[in-house]
Amino acid sequence: MNVAFINPFLSSLLNVLSTMASLDLTPGKPQIKTHDVAKGDVSGLIGMVGPETKGSMSITFDRSLIFEIMDKMLGEKPTSINDEVTDLVGEITNMVTGGAKNLLSDDGYEFDMATPAVVSGLGHSISHKSKGKKILMPFTHPKGNAYIEICFEDL
Amino acid sequence: MNVAFINPFLSSLLNVLSTMASLDLTPGKPQIKTHDVAKGDVSGLIGMVGPETKGSMSITFDRSLIFEIMDKMLGEKPTSINDEVTDLVGEITNMVTGGAKNLLSDDGYEFDMATPAVVSGLGHSISHKSKGKKILMPFTHPKGNAYIEICFEDL
Repeated sequence: MNVAFINPFLSSLLNVLSTMASLDLTPGKPQIKTHDVAKGDVSGLIGMVGPETKGSMSITFDRSLIFEIMDKMLGEKPTSINDEVTDLVGEITNMVTGGAKNLLSDDGYEFDMATPAVVSGLGHSISHKSKGKKILMPFTHPKGNAYIEICFEDL
Repeated sequence: MNVAFINPFLSSLLNVLSTMASLDLTPGKPQIKTHDVAKGDVSGLIGMVGPETKGSMSITFDRSLIFEIMDKMLGEKPTSINDEVTDLVGEITNMVTGGAKNLLSDDGYEFDMATPAVVSGLGHSISHKSKGKKILMPFTHPKGNAYIEICFEDL
């Protein structure tokens, strides 16, 4: 796992939410994840395949935070994790990965994105099963927490 | 979504569990999924990217069924969805997708696999967010249910 992969995903999430929802997350310190502690209520997952690496990425939100994002973006405050919410999480997953892909391409790392899947379920956790190290990037906001996890087979 | 994609995944799951765990699932009728009804306790997810299509696949197990598979394969009966269980689900996800990939390659469909991620959380559900139709393949067993979902952008 190359640390050069961290900042493109981190800055891409901040940028997507700031631009689309006028919502500013506060990034915490990225860390190597040693066991599954992080839990959330709705997650977008996507696979990536390049000529030299492959991996997976997830973005997980607390329910209260994704409801706030939905409200800010679409003027709708949902009361459950419905299809509109999972569609939005799928879109955010695509946009964040697309943004990171562009930044990484500038640095000479190329990959293609699969299509996202969205998991709903209160307090679920995700384990990325690539052989590489797992990086956890926490984000906080008064309305709730989010985190990104990325895992790529060693470059 | 090409129906030619259904049987390779279906037969690959039956084959993997029969070979590795001497466990025979009973396949139900594959169906186009119109809304998110299927829920389970542990799921493997993987992305796939080919020159002509991309998509995602998930395999979801009831807790009681994956515990039985673990017992039959490794002689261990877990009492919670621990790291050994999620590792096993990740391995099954890789093997089923690899088996389907080989079968589909024989038919002229090529894709590369990303790395799997495993979701744990009682009663979670998964929405695949590709533009293609979602196919749900249910499987039953006296110890619990499993299902595969695949979604590929239209070929």
